[in-house]
Amino acid sequence: MQAYAPLFSILNQAIDDQQYSLNKALPKEMYEPMAYIIGLGGKRVRPLLTLVGCELFDANPKEAIHAALAVELFHNFSLIHDDILDNAPLRRGHSTVHEKWGHNIALLSGDGMMVKAFDILSNANSHHVLELLKLFSRTAIEVCEGQQLDMNFETQEKVSVENYIHMITYKTAVLLGCSLQMGAICANASDKNQKHIYEFGKHVGIAFQILDDVLDVYADDGKFGKQVGGDILSNKKTFMLLNAFELANENQSSSLQYLLTSKEVLPTEKVKQVTAIYDTLGVRELAVKEANTHTAIALKHLEELDAEATRKNDLKAFALHLLNREV
Amino acid sequence: MQAYAPLFSILNQAIDDQQYSLNKALPKEMYEPMAYIIGLGGKRVRPLLTLVGCELFDANPKEAIHAALAVELFHNFSLIHDDILDNAPLRRGHSTVHEKWGHNIALLSGDGMMVKAFDILSNANSHHVLELLKLFSRTAIEVCEGQQLDMNFETQEKVSVENYIHMITYKTAVLLGCSLQMGAICANASDKNQKHIYEFGKHVGIAFQILDDVLDVYADDGKFGKQVGGDILSNKKTFMLLNAFELANENQSSSLQYLLTSKEVLPTEKVKQVTAIYDTLGVRELAVKEANTHTAIALKHLEELDAEATRKNDLKAFALHLLNREV
Repeated sequence: MQAYAPLFSILNQAIDDQQYSLNKALPKEMYEPMAYIIGLGGKRVRPLLTLVGCELFDANPKEAIHAALAVELFHNFSLIHDDILDNAPLRRGHSTVHEKWGHNIALLSGDGMMVKAFDILSNANSHHVLELLKLFSRTAIEVCEGQQLDMNFETQEKVSVENYIHMITYKTAVLLGCSLQMGAICANASDKNQKHIYEFGKHVGIAFQILDDVLDVYADDGKFGKQVGGDILSNKKTFMLLNAFELANENQSSSLQYLLTSKEVLPTEKVKQVTAIYDTLGVRELAVKEANTHTAIALKHLEELDAEATRKNDLKAFALHLLNREV
Repeated sequence: MQAYAPLFSILNQAIDDQQYSLNKALPKEMYEPMAYIIGLGGKRVRPLLTLVGCELFDANPKEAIHAALAVELFHNFSLIHDDILDNAPLRRGHSTVHEKWGHNIALLSGDGMMVKAFDILSNANSHHVLELLKLFSRTAIEVCEGQQLDMNFETQEKVSVENYIHMITYKTAVLLGCSLQMGAICANASDKNQKHIYEFGKHVGIAFQILDDVLDVYADDGKFGKQVGGDILSNKKTFMLLNAFELANENQSSSLQYLLTSKEVLPTEKVKQVTAIYDTLGVRELAVKEANTHTAIALKHLEELDAEATRKNDLKAFALHLLNREV
């Protein structure tokens, strides 16, 4: 995304500085893991969106740099703790923090990182701190609730598609909306514009997560960052699986149930056969349609907000680029 | 403390309301543990101090109720996570959250509780939020650092008394100072008065923690909430033990080393013999003296701040009541 190269450059410099100071901070047992996970990179979409949200409403994106850092630190805190919860060995191809330093260090450096996010927020322009804090803390609570709902799904027998959408909205999508709106707050955008940019980000986030479920099944092995079929192997209640159960006839339903619970089916066979049922039921198309619906809602909100046409177009292009992941 | 009965009544009502709404909030897996740990009670000294700090500077203590709740939620978050770190089965005579609901729920409900603390803070009088947030987030970082230092001590062979004081200052004392200062902020107290009340609380906290180490060894079994000698049995590097090692001659030092590491000494014998060495070296008196020094510093700060004499006297009496724990 050429249009955002200058913003990326501002952002990366600020994150590098942050990482540098974390690496020097004491006690190092707590701060080193923070610098480590930030150093693993990732796309840094969320903090970028904060700068984008600020520039969109005609302010200097540097006005939003503290908010952007807060978002990135919070996101990385959630990665450290989610990896503990999921018992995940790898993150972005490297050892997770708890694998590398143990559970206690991971717990505590995650805590420290979350507090640090709020601390950095307090350094934003004093005119914006109150509004930023209200939005950020409400969103952070929703992200925790979303994570809890996701954990609940593991043991719930029946999860509705509606509840699933609610879960991904909280776990993933609201932080995208929040990231953009925090930028808008730093640009003194109107309440109406703030609302539209938040909803834009939220619906892009929902679409993104649904397409992520699709990619888990249908991605080219080489292009997808994770193992194709990983969700199927772990019986994850994705948009695909939940819809498959809703659409399946009795035979298909018991086949699915068998594939999910039997210990005799080989992993490759499990992925293949579950995918075949998805194909028969057309859940891939259903998922793409649902994602498109949320993308359309997002674009409608973008249309309705007041900002320069070229800037809106840049953001639209960026969102479509994020969502256009060969499904 | 009769003088603070009205404040306690305001506080307990607010905490009860908070607990009630947590108990109804969804997902219950995340919120029930929060209501549970708050319901275990405790002395609620920190949030009381916030109301005290507000009233001291002539404002309606209700002005500080959001700050008080934030402090109490943060403190309870730290209890949930500290209990995970320490693998503690009991808290205030009841199962710890991770014992009752498992590690994942404890991790996540702790996270949610910390975010909730910041969220409640955002509901304070908008004129105070920025100042409150700066102080609260800085303090929260220090508390995390103190917890990490405490964990580090477990595996460090040599810990200086100075480092120990630094650790308890961060882990325990700064939150007392912060609690009082947050109240003062809500009363629009001057910077000078804020500084004095913070230092007062911090030094009371240091004295309190040192006396807690003494009590662990010398308390009447019936009156002390915990097992007498618990620190000795777990080889905890307390003010007592660190000073004992600094003062011991070669013989006493190897006796201590033997008692700490040998698997052949019976627990009761270990407590008895370590205590005997403490007695010989006079570390109890040393600890009481150090606590008195910090109490004196605290009272000096109280003296120097501008507030009504009766209010200062009430606070002095309350602090001495907290510290007067028959050592």
